[in-house]
Amino acid sequence: MRTVFHVSTTDQLSYVDAKVTNLLADDSLTVTAVAVVVDNPAVIDAAAGGDGRERVETVLAAGGDDADTAVRVCANALRGATATLEDLPAGVERASSGVGELTRLQADGWSYIRP
Amino acid sequence: MRTVFHVSTTDQLSYVDAKVTNLLADDSLTVTAVAVVVDNPAVIDAAAGGDGRERVETVLAAGGDDADTAVRVCANALRGATATLEDLPAGVERASSGVGELTRLQADGWSYIRP
Amino acid sequence: MRTVFHVSTTDQLSYVDAKVTNLLADDSLTVTAVAVVVDNPAVIDAAAGGDGRERVETVLAAGGDDADTAVRVCANALRGATATLEDLPAGVERASSGVGELTRLQADGWSYIRP
Repeated sequence: MRTVFHVSTTDQLSYVDAKVTNLLADDSLTVTAVAVVVDNPAVIDAAAGGDGRERVETVLAAGGDDADTAVRVCANALRGATATLEDLPAGVERASSGVGELTRLQADGWSYIRP
Repeated sequence: MRTVFHVSTTDQLSYVDAKVTNLLADDSLTVTAVAVVVDNPAVIDAAAGGDGRERVETVLAAGGDDADTAVRVCANALRGATATLEDLPAGVERASSGVGELTRLQADGWSYIRP
Repeated sequence: MRTVFHVSTTDQLSYVDAKVTNLLADDSLTVTAVAVVVDNPAVIDAAAGGDGRERVETVLAAGGDDADTAVRVCANALRGATATLEDLPAGVERASSGVGELTRLQADGWSYIRP
């Protein structure tokens, strides 16, 4: 199974890593991919440094050899942020749009969680 | 693909038009229908005038010739609102219930976004 | 159709029973199962007594003979709560994880609502 987390506030960013970790640690289901989609400029800025950056890095490393994990930022939100894609942890990707990515993944069978 | 946005606060109403516009402008996927489902009396009242009304009108016009866009208000929430369906912009529809509409659309393959 | 409600705040708990009741009362669709998944320690504590307990009991009884209703609490959140599973209304179940349960149900075709 595959799950996308939709993060729009710095509060949601502050615990999404724990949610991703809990999901991947749940032995009662097999999760092969997790994505976190960020669609807010302030969250992108928070992800560039400090605690927010650590949480993004935790998500990116959480899958180990068993699951793919991705963090994708909305291109529209990126234009409103101070940080650029280069300021974010290595591995963070640009999505054509947050809402487009959330639509595409669900249409492909992913589960959606608003943490 | 088709996407439903679930709006329950005036804050969510204040930016859902931008989310719908971003989705329809995303050339990396083909979106044929977008619905905004409102299930809160205060949001219905906000949609009857001023800025809220403009945002509803923006959603209703956002699809152009390429996509259907709809705004549907929960019949239960409508009973709690001061505004009536007639007070809302032309084209806004009444849903039997907000949660019923959200269930029905997802069961029919629509993606869900809590903006 | 089947619907899962994802509850993470005491505010959401305070009206999720009304949402479940509205869904089951909506004659325009047939709902055979509703689940409420709680993934926050404070909400688990709120569900152990007073108004929160009544709302959980309302959900558990809402289906009558026509629909199954369940309330499931995240095992991880349960570890952070003061209340134990035994302190909650009879019928409340333990989920291996909240996010796992939300993923599993959607993968099985359930609709998702963040109330």
